[in-house]
Amino acid sequence: MLYTPAVPRILATYHLACPRKQVEAAARWIAVEQTVEVPDALIDAHIEEAIVGRVESIDTLEDGRFAVAISYDAALAGGQLPQLLSLVFGNVSLGNFVRLERLALPAEFLARFRGPNFGVAGLRELVGVPDRPLLATALKPRGKSVAEFAALAGGFARGGGDLVKDDHNLVDARFEDFDERVRRCQAAVEETNAATGGRCLYLPYVCAPADELDRYVAAVRGHGVRGVLVAPMIAGLDTVRALAERERMLVMSHPTFTGAFQHDRNHGLEPGLLLGLLFRLAGIDVSVFVNSGGRFDFTREECGGIATALRAPLGDLPPAWPCPAGGMQFDRVGEMVAQFGPDTVLLVGGALLTHAPDVTDATRAYLDAVREAG
Amino acid sequence: MLYTPAVPRILATYHLACPRKQVEAAARWIAVEQTVEVPDALIDAHIEEAIVGRVESIDTLEDGRFAVAISYDAALAGGQLPQLLSLVFGNVSLGNFVRLERLALPAEFLARFRGPNFGVAGLRELVGVPDRPLLATALKPRGKSVAEFAALAGGFARGGGDLVKDDHNLVDARFEDFDERVRRCQAAVEETNAATGGRCLYLPYVCAPADELDRYVAAVRGHGVRGVLVAPMIAGLDTVRALAERERMLVMSHPTFTGAFQHDRNHGLEPGLLLGLLFRLAGIDVSVFVNSGGRFDFTREECGGIATALRAPLGDLPPAWPCPAGGMQFDRVGEMVAQFGPDTVLLVGGALLTHAPDVTDATRAYLDAVREAG
Repeated sequence: MLYTPAVPRILATYHLACPRKQVEAAARWIAVEQTVEVPDALIDAHIEEAIVGRVESIDTLEDGRFAVAISYDAALAGGQLPQLLSLVFGNVSLGNFVRLERLALPAEFLARFRGPNFGVAGLRELVGVPDRPLLATALKPRGKSVAEFAALAGGFARGGGDLVKDDHNLVDARFEDFDERVRRCQAAVEETNAATGGRCLYLPYVCAPADELDRYVAAVRGHGVRGVLVAPMIAGLDTVRALAERERMLVMSHPTFTGAFQHDRNHGLEPGLLLGLLFRLAGIDVSVFVNSGGRFDFTREECGGIATALRAPLGDLPPAWPCPAGGMQFDRVGEMVAQFGPDTVLLVGGALLTHAPDVTDATRAYLDAVREAG
Repeated sequence: MLYTPAVPRILATYHLACPRKQVEAAARWIAVEQTVEVPDALIDAHIEEAIVGRVESIDTLEDGRFAVAISYDAALAGGQLPQLLSLVFGNVSLGNFVRLERLALPAEFLARFRGPNFGVAGLRELVGVPDRPLLATALKPRGKSVAEFAALAGGFARGGGDLVKDDHNLVDARFEDFDERVRRCQAAVEETNAATGGRCLYLPYVCAPADELDRYVAAVRGHGVRGVLVAPMIAGLDTVRALAERERMLVMSHPTFTGAFQHDRNHGLEPGLLLGLLFRLAGIDVSVFVNSGGRFDFTREECGGIATALRAPLGDLPPAWPCPAGGMQFDRVGEMVAQFGPDTVLLVGGALLTHAPDVTDATRAYLDAVREAG
């Protein structure tokens, strides 16, 4: 039975690490576990037809695993992101041999999502950079004073940098401390922009108790800030979606706490599916991920897959920005630009801060390298 | 240097699967990655002392891995659950050899959390069952009519069952359908309770777009419902915490989408840490997990660890209920009661529905088995 895109079904392709003689039972197990979760005796003809997932195809992969395509009636996802996660990977996450590799979503489902507020074109307009890759940095390390962070932010803006975000470790116990830091860092960037004619953006990290998130975001807006950094797998993916939809700000995501979904190539979520497709559905404009060859173990292909998922056609959703990060050294700028292309944000944190004694000089040097590579 | 509990530090014990000659560097890497995430050149004496994690001890485990205890100043968690997750496992989740095995939280941090609204004693009072294990079931499979679900719920209540929850697949696209199902299932349970003098509780699954969650919960309350089922790793752990704190309802958690954190014994979160300690911090009264010997691959020890974490002393937080589930057959009731003890909710879904043609008879049979085992 072939998948018919005209029928509004969600198509999930899983890679299964199981013996050949078990693959058909495993495919059926997923189709049942993800939808009705009952013994076969309780599945009547109506439920089989209307609710249970359909095993559309089983193919053998080169590495000996199996690609199993299962389709679900889109109605099972209830038109919402939380239930989509549960439908395609909820219970099977509790197994240990199921990797959700691809997800095709019907137009009717996609139409419920706004996606990135700015995306590639919108952010280019915001920062006034028509064609080159963007340069971002992080305010770090935690432990520096607010004055030092403001000076860093201003210095980066003076050097021509495009996006300066809080390190995701900058989380204060007191709202007042958060508010003060945001106010002063934003002021430093705005003052520098006014002096240079630049359009650098400051993105504070919004990490708050769930019942205080609105207050934090309102404070950010009150200081004239245009965007935020969020951690979708900590705040909740749909909490981020709702925030992006309501606030219409620029939203950059940090991959903290996402790793357990991705570290095992035989189980979990393909990185492009999580940090690309799902984050983009949630309205992420810029998705930070750890690049290959840095401090972590992601492959060049996985990182390329994230970039592809962020920019590939997806209903009417604008394309988003891949943002490779994680121990990016100066001499890799050319390679990264070559791999990811112009519609990329290069996030350089510690490497920028150690590149030159002065952050403005370091920023200029990195920007020169970016321009040269482009 | 030994850990001093008097100092308000968070103590995280990681099990590392790495060669012996790398373990010290790996421990330092975690301590830095989780706090400042910069090259050593940027860590001055103040930041080293105040911010960077401290490697307190490194021990060799019997299986050749290493137990590395790292302490963090509790201030780094900002007194909040989202940042606690990021602090203890955020960036290292992106690696592939780090299992967070234990977490000791200072009293000052714990004091910020209310924990379960009912816990063991409170739920016993609600359902009027002083000492035996509780019996729970799930309304399933999706695809049955609301009338059938209401009949199931009423039949379970009539048989003397304690908790009947929605299957976590019961997610409607329309609020009105959710509202109608909750109204009728609650009415069926209430009518039966009135007739029998029983105190069965119905727990609808609240899974909604983040910006509609309050509306769903208000509807649930409006129907006189006393508790809900939630999926913390989908809704957001702190979203659940805020909901529990505000609504003061009974909160049962479903483990959907939690599995990737637990499936790899060399990476992720120890199950008792996630489904026990962290869920309890978030206010979960009853934590559903898949029992060993069922449809999934969790071990007897891991399941015991979840139960221990839910009931062990934790600041002033009440103990919560372990709720083993996942393909529990009738002939295992005695074994489960023996393993988990009386303060346990036994969740029997499909097995109950197939045990006898009539759900009331099946419920009575299961309850008899529970009483006999206790």
